[in-house]
This record gives sequence, C-alpha cells and structure tokens, in this order.
Amino acid sequence: MLTIDEIITKVSEYIDRLQYPSAPANLYEPIRYILSIGGKRIRPTLMLMAYNMYKDTPELILPQAAGLETYHNFTLLHDDLMDKSDVRRGNPTVHKKWNENAAILSGDTMLILAYKLFMDSANGQNPVMAADDFIAATLGVCEGQQYDIDFETHNDVTEAEYMEMIRMKTSLLLGYALKIGAKLAGASEEDCQHLYNFGEKMGIAFQLQDDLLDVYGDTKFFKKKLGADIVDNKKTYLLINALNLANTEQHEELTRLISLKTFDEEEKIAAVRHIYDEIGIAALTQKEIEKQFAESIEHLNQVKVDEEKKTHLYAFANKLMGRKY
Amino acid sequence: MLTIDEIITKVSEYIDRLQYPSAPANLYEPIRYILSIGGKRIRPTLMLMAYNMYKDTPELILPQAAGLETYHNFTLLHDDLMDKSDVRRGNPTVHKKWNENAAILSGDTMLILAYKLFMDSANGQNPVMAADDFIAATLGVCEGQQYDIDFETHNDVTEAEYMEMIRMKTSLLLGYALKIGAKLAGASEEDCQHLYNFGEKMGIAFQLQDDLLDVYGDTKFFKKKLGADIVDNKKTYLLINALNLANTEQHEELTRLISLKTFDEEEKIAAVRHIYDEIGIAALTQKEIEKQFAESIEHLNQVKVDEEKKTHLYAFANKLMGRKY
Repeated sequence: MLTIDEIITKVSEYIDRLQYPSAPANLYEPIRYILSIGGKRIRPTLMLMAYNMYKDTPELILPQAAGLETYHNFTLLHDDLMDKSDVRRGNPTVHKKWNENAAILSGDTMLILAYKLFMDSANGQNPVMAADDFIAATLGVCEGQQYDIDFETHNDVTEAEYMEMIRMKTSLLLGYALKIGAKLAGASEEDCQHLYNFGEKMGIAFQLQDDLLDVYGDTKFFKKKLGADIVDNKKTYLLINALNLANTEQHEELTRLISLKTFDEEEKIAAVRHIYDEIGIAALTQKEIEKQFAESIEHLNQVKVDEEKKTHLYAFANKLMGRKY
Repeated sequence: MLTIDEIITKVSEYIDRLQYPSAPANLYEPIRYILSIGGKRIRPTLMLMAYNMYKDTPELILPQAAGLETYHNFTLLHDDLMDKSDVRRGNPTVHKKWNENAAILSGDTMLILAYKLFMDSANGQNPVMAADDFIAATLGVCEGQQYDIDFETHNDVTEAEYMEMIRMKTSLLLGYALKIGAKLAGASEEDCQHLYNFGEKMGIAFQLQDDLLDVYGDTKFFKKKLGADIVDNKKTYLLINALNLANTEQHEELTRLISLKTFDEEEKIAAVRHIYDEIGIAALTQKEIEKQFAESIEHLNQVKVDEEKKTHLYAFANKLMGRKY
C-alpha cells in the first residue's frame, strides 16, 4: 500500500502533467491557471486511498481522480465569480485575472473536461460502474451552492437547514471520492456506503471546525484572518445557534450588530464574540464537531478490510482535523 | 419509419415531461423555464431521424436526445449571459428574469443534467458507445464560443477562421446529433461519418444563409429585424468578404462605418448594404451556401441505406434551408 504522501505525489504529478489543447488559448489558459495554483488535492487523494485498500494499482484510476479534482476546481472558479471573490489561494481569481466571461466559459469547459476525464477508459477501468455516483456528486454540489445562495437572503435558516447545506456543498464530494474509489476497486456495497458516510461526516466535522476557527482560531496555525464570517454576517453554525439560544437582550444586540451598515470591523467582531462567549457557542460547536467526527470514524471502523489497511485513512482524517494520531 | 412531425412530437412531449426535483426551486425553475420556451428541437429530432433509418425504435434514445437538447439550451443560457442579451425566443433571458448568478448556476446544473440524460441506460441503451462523441460535441461548442468571443476584438478575422468558428459553434452539434443517433442504432463507421458531414455542412449552409438574410432577407418570412448584424459590427461572412474584396475607397468607407460611435441605424445599414451591393457580396455568399449545401446532400447520398429511408432527412435539410423539396 502506498503512503498518503506517495499518493498525493502521484495525484499532483498526474494533474500537473494533464495536456490541454493549445487553442483557443483564452479558453484553456484559465483552466491551466486554476489547476496550477494548488490546493491540497484532498478529493483525488481520498479516491486513490479508498481504491488502494482493495487493489494495489491505484494509478489506474488517476483519470477518474483528476476528473473529480477538475470538477472541484470548476466549482471554486464559478463560486468565486458568484461571490465576487478577488483572491483564491493567495492568487487573483480567474474573473479578476481575465474577466467574467472567461470565468464562465472556462468553467463550463472544465466541467466538460471533468466528465471527459471521469469517462476515460484508456487504462482499462470501467468508469460506468461509478458514473451514477459521479453524476449524483456533481449535481449535489450545485444544489448545495444554491442553498448557500438562498440562505444569504434568509434570516431564519435553521440548524438543520445549515447542516444539510454544508453536507451537500462541501462534504458530499469527500464521501463520493471515497465511495467511487472503493467501487472502482470492486468493494462491496456495504463498504462503499460506510466509506461514503466516513467521508461525509468527516467533511461536516471539518466545515464546523472551520466555522469555529474563524472566531476562535489560533492565528499561529489558522492562516485566515479571524472574524471574516462575522464581518460578512455569514450564517455559520455559530451564528445560527447563537440566534436560537440568545435571551431577549442578546438577541436584540446580535440583530443590531448584523444590521449595521457601517461599522468598525474589530469592534463588531469583539461584540459578536462577546455574545458567543456568554452563550457558550464554542463548547456547543466543539461538541457537535466531536459527535460528527466520532460517527465518521465509526463508519471507517465498520469497513470490512484488515485494520492495517485502514491506517492511512485514520491518519488522513486526524490530519485533516489538525489532530495528532 | 416515423415522419418528421411524428418525431418532433415525440421529442417535444418527452422534453416537456422531464421531471426535476422540487428543491432547490431557485435552481430548477430557470431550467424548466428555458426548456419550456421552445425552440425547434432540431438536434434531438435529427438524432432520432438518423437512428430511425436503421432501427424502428427511436423512442429508446429519447433520453440521449433530450441530453443533447438540454446541452444546447445550456449553451444558449450561458451565451445570452456572456452576450448580455435580454431576449431569447421572444421571452426574457434567464439572467434578466432572475439574475446573473442564477444564470451561471442553473446553466452549470443543466450541463450536468445533459450528461445525466445522455448516460441514462434505463431504456436498455448503451450510451457509452457514443460517449466520446458527446464529449467531443460539448467541448467543441465551447471552443467555438471562445473563438466567437475572441473575434469580437480582432479586426483581421479571415474567411477561413470565420468558417472554422461557425463550424464549431453551430454546425458541429448538428453533425454529432446525426452521428450519435446512427451510432446508437449500430450503423457502420462510414455511414456515421457521412451523416456527421451531412449535418455539419448543412449547419454551415444554414448559418451562412442566416448571415445573408440579416441583410437581404424578405421581412415577410424572416422574423428578425434586418441589419442587426450591421448595427453590431458583427463579423459575418458578408462583412469579412466585403473587407477582403473592397477597393481602397470602399475599404475606407467600410472602416469608417464600423468605427462610428454614434449613428442612425437605418443610415448605417443602408450605407453598408450599398457597399455590399457594389462588391456583389450577396451573390458571393449565395454561391458558398450552394456549395456547402450541395456537399452536405452529397454526404447524405453516400449513406448506405435504401433511398426511401433517406427521404425524411432530404426533406428536413430542404425545409431547414427554406426550400421546396
């Protein structure tokens, strides 16, 4: 079995070496660009790791894994355009570096290239085995993005709605990465489903932790600027629960802070955080993270392969969550 | 064999009855909308007609045909957004009726739904047989759209470049519709290729005729307002050839007309048309249309099925070009 790092290297080299047509240059340049500025290649790595638990030839599904990563990067490209974000991974976004139409059309082309890679059977794979999963994954993420957009203008998003949104937008793709890898290696339906759930719940735990670190992160380890979600009034797990659990006075103050048109960012962050502290939002969120992560690991426990074959996936999950293992 | 009208009816009913999830409503409403405002269903009709020359069960490939039509409507949705067009088939475009982000995300979802429909094997089809063609078709149209965008800012587009652009953006999809239909019915490679060429050249002839009718159309039959391409300085077959063939004086006048920032539309149309008349652009374009259309028909002649089975396709081509048959 390959180590995590060996798999990441294989995946990265394969993606870096992907060939695109030389013309039309304005179509393929943005695609090369967004795939070259990195990312952790989490999804293709998980796909190969799942496959590798059953078969020793994970390199055979590199086209499918690259297809999933191409799809993921397509969603980033179009999401950045929809969110009007200027920066991605420290670099200008495609619509800033080129223009909006370039972002639309190059994104569309990436989505087609994702399917082209996924359907590649040159290496003897039969990707049709998992085509339904790839379709469900790509469709589900778009639905999740729609819920995310809808929630921006809703002031009554429930915790359940939020959990469903992050499940679809973020963690579903981790689940399918693992499921597709296992399925292409011929794993049982039960194993595929447990691996899916392992990935999905790991993704939810990761997203909730991301919400938490935005407010309570240690800036030594957490690279983003603290409080960005508070400044943007982003409906995170923390804000939704704070609004639910606040007493009358706290609720009025939170509502006032959210409705401010002009404000000092640091003051607003401090004021919201003060209410979070009073309510105990950090502990509440941490509890939910632990619950989701424990359920995630329990699904991995249920997968019927030798324990030693699961070692890398346990390690991966803990590393993703920033935990020692 | 079914008649053209019987096939159009089958295709339209199938597309009208397609079911979409009820939620998220904001994602699926624009998709229902653009598919409901019609269009001539040319591509799925051609696909079923080609299949029907070889097999009597064209309804079996309705999912694949609907996939191609969904893809075509996706390109219209995103093209309208990129072109900032307000009206499509007499109705407001999606980005006008909803907003730009809705047009981006619903379009993305349509592209995925197109693949989902194409990959549908519930009716016993093996769509993998033609998956490479579907991928090539969907990718080719995006490349064609990129060339079209590129040409907007180029003042030296050659006739060859223009022909290649319309081949990719418009006629390639007609060719693939026929090729995929025939392939799914088990036709020979030679027949598939001749049908592809028949469709592609028919599409080029149709596009050139569209260019011609914009200037010289009979408004009794041609529904669009005459001269729109001239107003927009659209690099059509007519303008490109006029610039190539103009004498010094005509070239200066054409260049002046193109560079006008403010102008009376009718005056500009009349002035450009006057130069076209002097150069004889209409006859030149008509000659190229006849050449392309004759080559198109010659490819249909080469298809190795009984002549009576080709009757409907001959009729379709002539009807598309507004000719009696």
